[in-house]
Amino acid sequence: MTAHPLAPLLAPSSVAIFGASNDPTRISGRSLRYYREAGYKGGLYPINPTRDTVQGLTAYPDLASVPGPVDCAVIAVPANLALEAMESCVAKGVKGVVMFTAGFAEIGPEGRAMQERITQIARDSGIRLCGPNCLGLFNMRTGHTATFSSFLEEGPTPAGPLGMVTQSGAFGTHLLALAARRGIQVGVWMSTGNEADVAVADGISFMADDPETQAIACYVEAIKDGALFAEAVARARKNGKPVIAMKVGGSAVGAAAAASHTASLAGSDAVYDAALRQLGVERARTPEDLIEIAYACTRGRLPASRRLAVMTMSGGAGVLMADAAEEEGVELTPLSEESQKEVLSWVPFAAPRNPVDVTAQALNDPSILDKSFELLFGKENFPAMIGFFTTWASSPQMAEPLFKSVTGAAARYPDRYFALSAIATPEMQRRYEAAGVGLFEDPWAAVAAVAGAMRCAERIAMPPLPAPPIPKHLPPLPQGRIAEHEAKRILAEAGIPVLDERLVTNAGQAAAAGVELGERLVLKIVSPDIPHKTEMGGVMLDVPAREAGAAYDQIVQRVTARAPRAKIDGVLLSPMVKGGTEMILGVQNDAVFGPVVMLGLGGIFVEVLRDVTFRIAPFGIEEAHKMIGELRGAAILDGARGQPPCDIDALAIALSKLSVFVAAQKGQFTSIDVNPLLVRPKGQGAAALDALILTPSAAANDDEVAP
Amino acid sequence: MTAHPLAPLLAPSSVAIFGASNDPTRISGRSLRYYREAGYKGGLYPINPTRDTVQGLTAYPDLASVPGPVDCAVIAVPANLALEAMESCVAKGVKGVVMFTAGFAEIGPEGRAMQERITQIARDSGIRLCGPNCLGLFNMRTGHTATFSSFLEEGPTPAGPLGMVTQSGAFGTHLLALAARRGIQVGVWMSTGNEADVAVADGISFMADDPETQAIACYVEAIKDGALFAEAVARARKNGKPVIAMKVGGSAVGAAAAASHTASLAGSDAVYDAALRQLGVERARTPEDLIEIAYACTRGRLPASRRLAVMTMSGGAGVLMADAAEEEGVELTPLSEESQKEVLSWVPFAAPRNPVDVTAQALNDPSILDKSFELLFGKENFPAMIGFFTTWASSPQMAEPLFKSVTGAAARYPDRYFALSAIATPEMQRRYEAAGVGLFEDPWAAVAAVAGAMRCAERIAMPPLPAPPIPKHLPPLPQGRIAEHEAKRILAEAGIPVLDERLVTNAGQAAAAGVELGERLVLKIVSPDIPHKTEMGGVMLDVPAREAGAAYDQIVQRVTARAPRAKIDGVLLSPMVKGGTEMILGVQNDAVFGPVVMLGLGGIFVEVLRDVTFRIAPFGIEEAHKMIGELRGAAILDGARGQPPCDIDALAIALSKLSVFVAAQKGQFTSIDVNPLLVRPKGQGAAALDALILTPSAAANDDEVAP
Repeated sequence: MTAHPLAPLLAPSSVAIFGASNDPTRISGRSLRYYREAGYKGGLYPINPTRDTVQGLTAYPDLASVPGPVDCAVIAVPANLALEAMESCVAKGVKGVVMFTAGFAEIGPEGRAMQERITQIARDSGIRLCGPNCLGLFNMRTGHTATFSSFLEEGPTPAGPLGMVTQSGAFGTHLLALAARRGIQVGVWMSTGNEADVAVADGISFMADDPETQAIACYVEAIKDGALFAEAVARARKNGKPVIAMKVGGSAVGAAAAASHTASLAGSDAVYDAALRQLGVERARTPEDLIEIAYACTRGRLPASRRLAVMTMSGGAGVLMADAAEEEGVELTPLSEESQKEVLSWVPFAAPRNPVDVTAQALNDPSILDKSFELLFGKENFPAMIGFFTTWASSPQMAEPLFKSVTGAAARYPDRYFALSAIATPEMQRRYEAAGVGLFEDPWAAVAAVAGAMRCAERIAMPPLPAPPIPKHLPPLPQGRIAEHEAKRILAEAGIPVLDERLVTNAGQAAAAGVELGERLVLKIVSPDIPHKTEMGGVMLDVPAREAGAAYDQIVQRVTARAPRAKIDGVLLSPMVKGGTEMILGVQNDAVFGPVVMLGLGGIFVEVLRDVTFRIAPFGIEEAHKMIGELRGAAILDGARGQPPCDIDALAIALSKLSVFVAAQKGQFTSIDVNPLLVRPKGQGAAALDALILTPSAAANDDEVAP
Repeated sequence: MTAHPLAPLLAPSSVAIFGASNDPTRISGRSLRYYREAGYKGGLYPINPTRDTVQGLTAYPDLASVPGPVDCAVIAVPANLALEAMESCVAKGVKGVVMFTAGFAEIGPEGRAMQERITQIARDSGIRLCGPNCLGLFNMRTGHTATFSSFLEEGPTPAGPLGMVTQSGAFGTHLLALAARRGIQVGVWMSTGNEADVAVADGISFMADDPETQAIACYVEAIKDGALFAEAVARARKNGKPVIAMKVGGSAVGAAAAASHTASLAGSDAVYDAALRQLGVERARTPEDLIEIAYACTRGRLPASRRLAVMTMSGGAGVLMADAAEEEGVELTPLSEESQKEVLSWVPFAAPRNPVDVTAQALNDPSILDKSFELLFGKENFPAMIGFFTTWASSPQMAEPLFKSVTGAAARYPDRYFALSAIATPEMQRRYEAAGVGLFEDPWAAVAAVAGAMRCAERIAMPPLPAPPIPKHLPPLPQGRIAEHEAKRILAEAGIPVLDERLVTNAGQAAAAGVELGERLVLKIVSPDIPHKTEMGGVMLDVPAREAGAAYDQIVQRVTARAPRAKIDGVLLSPMVKGGTEMILGVQNDAVFGPVVMLGLGGIFVEVLRDVTFRIAPFGIEEAHKMIGELRGAAILDGARGQPPCDIDALAIALSKLSVFVAAQKGQFTSIDVNPLLVRPKGQGAAALDALILTPSAAANDDEVAP
């Protein structure tokens, strides 16, 4: 038994079942029956005051009467009795509770209050609580079946390599059924229901430590605690286990349905998407993607790189697998000239490049199979191969020679990843799987799933760089609406580049400052009462430095004429800078992941194309470079349309600095906008030309905030 | 027997098999065996000079000896004997030949020459030839099995509702196997091999007329004749039959693999994509998409609109189906308030909006099923519904009540489309299908496939407007490089709007013309030797009209100084126009589809984002509007970023006029560029500011051609 904090829930030595029914078809009787069918070896105690035995086991009138310790309790009693049951668990020293009972937060305020009481009991006593309103969990390594999921109606499932965590019990059961039909055995499964205590992250964390789990699949509607989730995913990665998640609720109707279903705040799907990528989670778009990538990741090995050999007996299949490879970012590196010649020496009309199409010739000469596999894994040293062999895997003539040849190669090259696209009988499919070779009927799906496994393996091999440290004891932010001058001063202290600028309060100061700043200047009015400076005539561009004094008088007169009652703090002078690309940087406090940095290209890219990308703060410079590369318009920064390349390094540094600053100031601001940040030609750095910080005390109706 | 031109190939009354072997496992013996197993009722004549009987049938030494007429011949003899076999077919009056034989165009020039001879014989004699180098075809309506596809090794397939045409025999066989495993019966199947005569389009055309075919699935590597393909698809649409196609070779490696596989020119995937959409073909991305949409389209009915009711017993499934619906453009319109109240009266904790989640309550009260279906199809009048019922369809308790309720509703509402996401035994699956209800295990896949069927139904219900007529007897284009002035004159005659402009040859003319054209002018040098006017100082913008004479002298001097040997034809004067959006229009001659019009937004949209869209010429104004709407940056034209909305109608008219012009001039030009076409604010029209026409005699190295 592992020492994981969730062990009392997922690997208990003894289990009590409250309200266990003698009727093995009722919810309260099913779990007990499943335990017995699964051969659970620990102590198993039905709690039922009305019977001496339940399903042949000695029953106890209450938990206190159970002799010896109880690790885990299954509570299936009605909601009004659940509190009492929890209290008896505390008295007995139970450490894990699985609560099926519905009628809590999901039904409204009254239920929510009751859930809070139960949660408090769990917190106070150190009990880890799964549910309420869940379908429970199982761990087939020990036959622990604290669930009434109908999936186990067909008998216990084998203790296989996939772990699965799901926020929907019903859909989790459907996923179990889909996985089983695909031949994937789910060893550990947990549905989290209302997540009063235990969340998806806890399940991932346990499975990360479970030695027999090879990969973890999740169904997620809303993550409650982003930091906990990040920690769990990092733990899985450290232990070499891919985490594949389907996050639903991305559409408007879907989010509404998720909210009515789970009563939880669904964050922005774009932020989820960025966060899952950043954390190293493989996001599945559909249930089938989830199952197929999980299948590819539970073959006992993972592909070492994105280099793939495709071997076919049909040119058509090769073409579409090449299409799929390009779409999925998989590299079909061509064979060496020498190897291509060798292929042609076996089959003159073969396509020898990659895809390697040996045509149907192997029907006449099966030795082509052995020679090809040896060439591709041996001489050409491919880390991964997909072979398209259509119905050969089930044809009377070819099934056995193909099996022998494929599994022989898989055995000779135990560090290589070998998958087939083929149609086989279920028995033959199981034989291949036992040899570590996965089978996919659809060749496109084969490439897509193997590509998923490649991405997963890449994340495990190249863990993200550690996030930069978060400085402590930063000075507190001023309260309210922190406008341009002050905002840029604060950001400059945090390392965001700004221009040299001066706040002046009369024409004389302006004239003096002007000559120090450069030949051409920008003047901007500084007033807490004028958020929209340009509209009020409060901005002057490209002013010759020698005219700074006159320009000062002019701008103040102009603004005063239009806004006579505005308090004017002065005029900001800065050098006029030309050339470069304007970016928009923004920071929001995401309900799930905390401060999240947004990056977009200015102008139509943000306004028309919504071309933005996100990262959870803090992050380092390398991660910032990845972020920049995700913009659809990233080529603009490389110098498209005859412009010089921009100082992308300066942008990346600014992004990382901003992320560190906002992580340190977490909770102190509501939003931060740097709009625009001018990224100048390479070597010339970047500069925040305007900025705005809003703190919780500021009115939230300022439309200068970036989109 | 239908009178379709392909009837001798696909529905013959008598068949002769050249080289028919007595060994039913050999290629030359298989087809004959399949005929007998499929119970073919027509005349069946093995041609085999070495035997009296073949597989129990009387054999004939040659075709001439066969008594009575022969509609179709199957030729499986070696390539060197194929020519002779063809000639005997001509002599016998055979009208259809299926040639399995390989060793023709796919092996090189010698094979290509032989293929051309055979094709010529077919053309001259009116024989329709399928192949060579193909796996043949079958039509299960009559048991006509002119194929050696291993798919029929398991016995004849039922005469089902799907037609399938494939350019790859091996992959086509794989698709047959995938379809069979999905429970789809393919009634008519054709592999086209080298397409010496019969192409994919011919197969589509035949199946369009076949009364029992409900939908047609295609696997395509390269279409040879776009017009023929368009005609066949139109025929299928007219007969109410969706055409679903997987077109492969879109990637670089895929295109190379396709080229080496089929030796055919693979056109641009973007053009294929646009053309398939324009023609009304549902393009499938993967084999699985192809199979699933074909499944959804062969249930005996199609969904009447995109309005969909989703009913579930799991909130989680509802959320993800809502996500899928949004991604697929399916409308989950909410139920009326009254109906929502009714749902809540059955199940207080239901989600009643749409998705309608009735929770697991129907386990306790199956009457909820009938009531829900009646509410959704009856009162709410949904044309289509997907019900998520997970393993209920196979559970001992629920399987029969669910089946009764679902199929009852399907029978009461025969014009509605009803699909389930559920896991059932194969037998139960077949029972649902017999009642017109399709089953999908993955709820996402269910929505995606039904969405495909919705798009197909939409195309059938709303056929494209007829293309505008192509004018005849247009004056021939001048030869060579037709530059700005002349190109715009030609395009103006075709109805493309241009600005009023004058070609002047001295300062006096310039001064006189200037005052007629407006207050501010643009001057451009006109010279066949100066393609890049701006770089040579040959463009002057925003010139006051009264200075036109002086500007004339200035521009000519400037250009002469830089290019003293350039022949100068004069200077073009036009009004300076400000405001509006610059578009790029281009026309290319696609190898498959003929003249194809490209549209893009000027600037970064084309250069950085490659945001362009295509249409086959000619097309009408409504189609042009669809084309404009496909641009990612289309919002720019609607007046994004504070600009006034542009004259989109004028743009659409210009596009359509250009398409008609290029269709009329087909073969007379190599490329046409209108770059830019300025689309002015709404009501102010559009104007081609520059244009270039290249004809076959022009050098192709002009880099003024748009990207």
